[in-house]
Amino acid sequence: MSELGDALHLQQSGTGWTGELSDDWAIGEAINGGLLMTLATTATSRASESVGGHLDPLSFSGVFLSPGSAGPVRIEPRILRSGRSMTTAEVVVSQQVGGSDVERFRALVTLGDLDRYAEPVLKTVAAPDIPPPDKCLAATDAPPSTLTKSGFLKRFDARMDPATIGWALGEPSGQGEMRGWLRLADDAPIDAAALLLVLDAFPPVSFDLGSVGWVPTVEFTGYVRGIPAPGWLQLRLHTEHVAGGLLNEDCEVWDSTGRLVAHSRQLASARFAPTSVE
Amino acid sequence: MSELGDALHLQQSGTGWTGELSDDWAIGEAINGGLLMTLATTATSRASESVGGHLDPLSFSGVFLSPGSAGPVRIEPRILRSGRSMTTAEVVVSQQVGGSDVERFRALVTLGDLDRYAEPVLKTVAAPDIPPPDKCLAATDAPPSTLTKSGFLKRFDARMDPATIGWALGEPSGQGEMRGWLRLADDAPIDAAALLLVLDAFPPVSFDLGSVGWVPTVEFTGYVRGIPAPGWLQLRLHTEHVAGGLLNEDCEVWDSTGRLVAHSRQLASARFAPTSVE
Repeated sequence: MSELGDALHLQQSGTGWTGELSDDWAIGEAINGGLLMTLATTATSRASESVGGHLDPLSFSGVFLSPGSAGPVRIEPRILRSGRSMTTAEVVVSQQVGGSDVERFRALVTLGDLDRYAEPVLKTVAAPDIPPPDKCLAATDAPPSTLTKSGFLKRFDARMDPATIGWALGEPSGQGEMRGWLRLADDAPIDAAALLLVLDAFPPVSFDLGSVGWVPTVEFTGYVRGIPAPGWLQLRLHTEHVAGGLLNEDCEVWDSTGRLVAHSRQLASARFAPTSVE
Repeated sequence: MSELGDALHLQQSGTGWTGELSDDWAIGEAINGGLLMTLATTATSRASESVGGHLDPLSFSGVFLSPGSAGPVRIEPRILRSGRSMTTAEVVVSQQVGGSDVERFRALVTLGDLDRYAEPVLKTVAAPDIPPPDKCLAATDAPPSTLTKSGFLKRFDARMDPATIGWALGEPSGQGEMRGWLRLADDAPIDAAALLLVLDAFPPVSFDLGSVGWVPTVEFTGYVRGIPAPGWLQLRLHTEHVAGGLLNEDCEVWDSTGRLVAHSRQLASARFAPTSVE
């Protein structure tokens, strides 16, 4: 069983599912949002399957309400619409805190059949040309993490394009861009639901704009366009609009055949130290 | 009272609000989705205000479940989180059909204080250079609409960049791009909530890819970045990935000062006639 498979272990419980969140997937003081999204999507797909609905996530839009913490977690999907080509659901992820149900996030998910949308490709975004993984920098080459928890970083083999890693050496480029490669540390296969984890796995682009500190996600919308072929995934993160610390972080993911398999936009609020805006 | 003001008239009713949808805002067989989103956002803002929360929409993510029709409509917002700088809510829009509640759409909304995020602008997208409104083509210059209902089109003064209007003359450019200007036909002011209407007001980019027929929105995520200055709004719609008929339509809106005031991405499913993909 892969590390991700372990993390996605779910048990049916009443109208929903229960799982267990681990600090192995924590970054800073919270369980990584992408892991929660993949967990929620996996449960939602099962709920859909149980009513004869569709299985593959096509879109996922969520709002983060409070940070996840290690311990039991409850996932409650609810089918809103069962159509001929798509199934729409809402999913709520919550944890018990001091005897009360505390919502971690809530999302709206559209499911369908990814095979149906593979062809023809009338237009697409090509992956940028970057150095191959063995010429990119691994997380182990970076300065030690100052984060209180960073188990999350050990779950991946991430290789960053040296041109977008200046921030780790105190020299952000100011472009707000991250490029690189990703696979799971145990090289387990990435399925459609796991692409949501991938979309949230890289450092925030705000680091490349001179921001310090983690950048909590306010809202995230991801789209899955295909199940990746085996091998490295290539990522590009960028931002087009940063004002008053509020930014949208866009991410594109290509598989080893060069196919765009997922993309997303998230709204996040970053803090910029005064010197970085002069 | 402006036409939009009329359409957004809401009455408090129990835990929610009621309004009235009119064919004046219909396109094809449905009430325009953007109008529903603006209505929902307006009600959500009021619900937030009533609990001391924030008023301006920052993000809006919705899934469309069934088309709206002329008649009474119910909007039910629910505050999920009341934070220091943001308030998060869910909102459900439904209509009575044959005695049952039928959900039209459901959305997750983040509200905040737009003034807080105006400055500094570290990075942004500039509006493309296009001919001024008086050199662009008005809807009245276009071939008569073949849509069964098109009251919606009369609510706006839309001027399309001639370079992106070939599709109306049977010659789509294949780029999947629309550019132009927009204001309300009665030139009423556009506030933050009304920007969601604007984001969904132009023809779908799939027309410029050779698709015929309307393109129902599956999922829509919009972001408001500022309240527009008076005057024309400039729009650019484009798509970066079209595969198997599934496409993301991106929209950017700039106000008359050149400031990016809103942007969005929606997932839609288009039908492409066989000849258009040869």
